[in-house]
Amino acid sequence: MVQARRKGKSEPLVRGEAVVRGVLAATLREAARAGYHGLRIEDVAALAGVNKTTVYRRWPTKQELVRDALLSIAGAALTVADAGSLREDLLAIARRIASLGAQAEYQGLYRLFVVEGGDPELVAIVRSLRTSFEAVPRAILEAADRRGELAPGVDPKLLFDVLGAALNRRLFFEREPLDEAWLQQLVDLLLHGALARPRTSR
Amino acid sequence: MVQARRKGKSEPLVRGEAVVRGVLAATLREAARAGYHGLRIEDVAALAGVNKTTVYRRWPTKQELVRDALLSIAGAALTVADAGSLREDLLAIARRIASLGAQAEYQGLYRLFVVEGGDPELVAIVRSLRTSFEAVPRAILEAADRRGELAPGVDPKLLFDVLGAALNRRLFFEREPLDEAWLQQLVDLLLHGALARPRTSR
Repeated sequence: MVQARRKGKSEPLVRGEAVVRGVLAATLREAARAGYHGLRIEDVAALAGVNKTTVYRRWPTKQELVRDALLSIAGAALTVADAGSLREDLLAIARRIASLGAQAEYQGLYRLFVVEGGDPELVAIVRSLRTSFEAVPRAILEAADRRGELAPGVDPKLLFDVLGAALNRRLFFEREPLDEAWLQQLVDLLLHGALARPRTSR
Repeated sequence: MVQARRKGKSEPLVRGEAVVRGVLAATLREAARAGYHGLRIEDVAALAGVNKTTVYRRWPTKQELVRDALLSIAGAALTVADAGSLREDLLAIARRIASLGAQAEYQGLYRLFVVEGGDPELVAIVRSLRTSFEAVPRAILEAADRRGELAPGVDPKLLFDVLGAALNRRLFFEREPLDEAWLQQLVDLLLHGALARPRTSR
């Protein structure tokens, strides 16, 4: 298989999607455990059961490896089937994040960002991932907009950031369950707002 | 001055409001620096320039000391003048939190809760402070309700939790400035929601 070489992108030198997925999963697990500074490529390789050079060939730096590992979450966390309404789409994403948040690994990654998030390498990673993490929400919100659901001037990024922020607060500060009733209350606040208004007919 | 002794409450044995304030400020600073487990009463006493026994007499345990120190923030962070509209009140609180969040001490306390927040003593502290931290928002929202501003069924606690969560995310994940334009966008999303609706006359 011949691929056009894109400048600055890693080559598909590691054969087998399974190997790539294994290394990325091992990276997430190690980063959650050891933090960004504590992450060692040899530990990732050992955990993934591959040679250290296999990792280095595709990801010459820790920064590139961690970036790709975090990118692999974007799909898992945010890809949901189009449910046909913004409310159901937001609920589906909220449920997905709630189930991820119950995992020790996700909790470790959250700690990593709070404790080490000011590190210039991590800041650069977050900046470079922004577009990828915004793609799924954007698709959902574009669909909602086509259905005429969205108020003019609403910032899609802000809506999803606030949703994620509230879920993380519940998980890591309140340490209360993200049960279905609470998720619905949250989504309805974000959709309808706190202000009283004349009800529309429905 | 004779005070009725309330069971389980610390006595006013430390004379002088200034001493109490000094010890609580030192506690916040030390907790932000060393974390909850790393916090030592002798360091707090030294920083506050008082004798260790002065601290122990009023706060027999670290848990009680940290609880009172955090309680002292509630007033500072959330007390705002009644501006006469929910939007202005929320903006005033958001601005206050934004300015606190720029301080290293507040950032240290945030890390403390993310890293150690699962500790049973800290969980108990958070639970016992809930009522105090909810008092100011509740007053603001009751005033808004009397003005007929609030939609029926809106959970005041949720509204304020989501506001705080979004501010913290911006501070600690995005690491972007909490500028006035962003604060207004956030408050307006929480007040009006993301859904399109027929505009009310105004």
